[in-house]
Amino acid sequence: MSTQLNLYEHLANELGALIHSRVLAPGERLPSIRHLAQQKRLSISTVMQALRLMEDRGLIDAKPQAGYYVRHRARMLAVMTDAEQMAEPAFVGINNLLMRVLKANEDKSIVQLGSAWPPDELLPVKRMQKTVASTARRDPGLLSRVSCYDTNEPEFLRQISRRALDWGQLDPNEIVVTGSCTEAISLCLRAVAKPGDTIAIESATYFVLLQLIESLGMKALEIPTHPKTGPSIDAIEVALNAKLIQACLFVPNANNPLGCIMPEENKKRLADLLTQHNVPLIEDDIYGDLCFTPERPWPVKAYDSSGNVLLCSSFSKAVSPAARVGYVVAGRFAQEVALLKMVSSGATSHFFQAVLADFLNCSSYENQVRKMRRVLAQRIARMSDAVCASFPQDCSVSEPQGGFVLWVQMPAQVDALALHDSAIGQGVAFMPGQLFSASGKYRNYLRLNCGNPWGPEVESAVSKLGELVHRQLDQPGGATPVQSGGIALKQVSGIHLSS
Amino acid sequence: MSTQLNLYEHLANELGALIHSRVLAPGERLPSIRHLAQQKRLSISTVMQALRLMEDRGLIDAKPQAGYYVRHRARMLAVMTDAEQMAEPAFVGINNLLMRVLKANEDKSIVQLGSAWPPDELLPVKRMQKTVASTARRDPGLLSRVSCYDTNEPEFLRQISRRALDWGQLDPNEIVVTGSCTEAISLCLRAVAKPGDTIAIESATYFVLLQLIESLGMKALEIPTHPKTGPSIDAIEVALNAKLIQACLFVPNANNPLGCIMPEENKKRLADLLTQHNVPLIEDDIYGDLCFTPERPWPVKAYDSSGNVLLCSSFSKAVSPAARVGYVVAGRFAQEVALLKMVSSGATSHFFQAVLADFLNCSSYENQVRKMRRVLAQRIARMSDAVCASFPQDCSVSEPQGGFVLWVQMPAQVDALALHDSAIGQGVAFMPGQLFSASGKYRNYLRLNCGNPWGPEVESAVSKLGELVHRQLDQPGGATPVQSGGIALKQVSGIHLSS
Repeated sequence: MSTQLNLYEHLANELGALIHSRVLAPGERLPSIRHLAQQKRLSISTVMQALRLMEDRGLIDAKPQAGYYVRHRARMLAVMTDAEQMAEPAFVGINNLLMRVLKANEDKSIVQLGSAWPPDELLPVKRMQKTVASTARRDPGLLSRVSCYDTNEPEFLRQISRRALDWGQLDPNEIVVTGSCTEAISLCLRAVAKPGDTIAIESATYFVLLQLIESLGMKALEIPTHPKTGPSIDAIEVALNAKLIQACLFVPNANNPLGCIMPEENKKRLADLLTQHNVPLIEDDIYGDLCFTPERPWPVKAYDSSGNVLLCSSFSKAVSPAARVGYVVAGRFAQEVALLKMVSSGATSHFFQAVLADFLNCSSYENQVRKMRRVLAQRIARMSDAVCASFPQDCSVSEPQGGFVLWVQMPAQVDALALHDSAIGQGVAFMPGQLFSASGKYRNYLRLNCGNPWGPEVESAVSKLGELVHRQLDQPGGATPVQSGGIALKQVSGIHLSS
Repeated sequence: MSTQLNLYEHLANELGALIHSRVLAPGERLPSIRHLAQQKRLSISTVMQALRLMEDRGLIDAKPQAGYYVRHRARMLAVMTDAEQMAEPAFVGINNLLMRVLKANEDKSIVQLGSAWPPDELLPVKRMQKTVASTARRDPGLLSRVSCYDTNEPEFLRQISRRALDWGQLDPNEIVVTGSCTEAISLCLRAVAKPGDTIAIESATYFVLLQLIESLGMKALEIPTHPKTGPSIDAIEVALNAKLIQACLFVPNANNPLGCIMPEENKKRLADLLTQHNVPLIEDDIYGDLCFTPERPWPVKAYDSSGNVLLCSSFSKAVSPAARVGYVVAGRFAQEVALLKMVSSGATSHFFQAVLADFLNCSSYENQVRKMRRVLAQRIARMSDAVCASFPQDCSVSEPQGGFVLWVQMPAQVDALALHDSAIGQGVAFMPGQLFSASGKYRNYLRLNCGNPWGPEVESAVSKLGELVHRQLDQPGGATPVQSGGIALKQVSGIHLSS
């Protein structure tokens, strides 16, 4: 046994040295177990033991069915799950800032690392062209018919229900078809809460969710959110017990911007808490089908026994953002949401419901999301490596488990908004961290869209960003960067409630 | 001169007798002036004098470039323009009632005289099929590309601006593209007012506008509305001076359900008042292109010098309700409306913007609306005649100047909702009057959709409705019908502020 032990420790140390000297670069795939065993003349089980040790040492990550990868140097955002540190509920005020950032993002000549749209080249555009033409030919009524009220395209509803069979059974009467996932969430918020009410959100969270809360005159309570496991259930429980919140609005599968997925046991505990307190959760599952986990994670809705979960999604990230069709499975709020939908915007395109149903009704959709998952995981890894290579050592990046954005933490004295304005000047757009908090947090964070195909243009854009961060830190006014390492990271992490 | 006078009086009396004996039926066209002159051996000017006299006596109506028509017996709703009689601002509460009515309306086996959708057979479906296919072929990017923020299809914006050139010049930066006219109005309401604010509306008005106000927690102030000339400007001025209202929401061109058009001088006076008080008007112009007047009436926006008018419309009534594209020219609120649009539902289908632009960019659209105006005016006349023939004598009907609905006033003791429930039992749907008021008015009114092609099915449906009204009046519990005639009509008109 002791010889065996030495053998695998020896291998682990040897490979570790290669990583430290960057012969094996961050994000790079290790040779296969079989290959290592042959090369080093060791048994398969010895190699596996070595790799497990390296994993424990934080040097590599196992990716299911894909092998082992060199972990990024600054690999994970610091963790905050302490409910004591929650801020007070606050009205949101990001709209003006956001409009300024988005206007800059619209410039076509700029490298778009800002808005998180799926890249055209990954979408099934040719297939959509055919389906649009054939649908128009087959059913002209879809170009005149409309129902403002109850009915939608039955085949579209059937496809949504069919896809949900993996985790449960949907009551078709609970489904309200909307013009987008955003519209679904907007209607849900209006159905479950009123102006002045407080909505629990993840911290950080997607700026459009903050904007929605702002535009409806509601307040946001930021729940401490672990960059791997999502919102702290303990913190949610504290908020529920104190009757601080009237509803939750979470992105449990591949949160934007963190990319984290709530573990199934957390989802179950959350669903039970909601039932117990009779408080609704609006669940944004738009990235659910684009998670990199071996199994498609379930929504919290799967554990909902009381109709308190309103599951919102669309096919805009994986099939076509242009279809403008989303939906919500609205639980006990179905009737109110349906009424608000009718009142606020009327019917949703039956034509594109039929087009999507056609696409969902075969293996095309499964193939499409499989392809996207594979490509997006690769592009995130490339982006992550590039950030680690260009940005100061004491930056850290998220490890997204789905979607296509990367969340980057910079030293505390960096101002992402100032960085943004310089970057726009140099032809690079990104989303500054300030947009992802209701309470002014994440001043030293930024979000990068990793959807674009990797190439010299993107590579140079990331490198420019890195230089700009260095330059901000080197400025006479800029404080000395906080030293790298776990402790420094914790100090500047997203857990602080003001900054 | 006296002989001349006798001659034309004689002719007027002769024709009048034919009308009273129903040899000339309500809605029927009189022989042409030339024909009458030849037949009676009178001069053209004598015949014209006779017809003018008959017009003064309320027996016939001149329709520009179409000749003279026998007036309907009970032809016009009584008038109310007295500002003194305005009710207090009131929260709206029609949603539950409406859902019940709409559910009944969805039954396909029922004759649909309820919801006001344009009939398929009048819409350019074939043309849309072709354009959809060619657009998908020509620009695949429209099936993937999307911009949540600022940009829309430039050609669509250009077409909207081009069509507005008839009455003024639009600033393209004022245009916000939305998923429907309803969504445009909803966003405008949220941009210009907050919960608890009071919105001036026409009385009667379209139930979706009431619902919007209800769903946003705002109050409605019903402005007395003349069935021919629309809302009383005097009443609006009273409300503005008393600072009772924070905004107006009117349908100045072919109000739904009355079909009235505000005279241009009223529009100008209204625009001036709004400027003076800096109060916004949300203008629903969705029926503007479907008015039966020789010239397309201008919107109030044409007279707006202060950016207080937010002009909302779509092509859903004249081209395709299925396109799900509307817009608002939002004046000084453009930025707020654009932000709310982005937040509440994201982008609007670029694909259908392009399809509509293609349709608008040639004579097709003009031909289409010309055809619809002609056919809809005929169908309204048929419906009006059928109502006059089947309903009790002391009913009256509106004289719509556009759109495709007819508003029917029944004796005071008729309950339109009870009537609705019996009618659904007999396979006929309509909209009960209760839905068109924020304050419980119009209990004895109903709205009929006249868009459907005339035929035995519709004819029998109207006849059934008439029978049901008679039956309600004959019931032991039912009071004796109010006697017909001008005075009775005034007593039961839409002017009363509680009923």
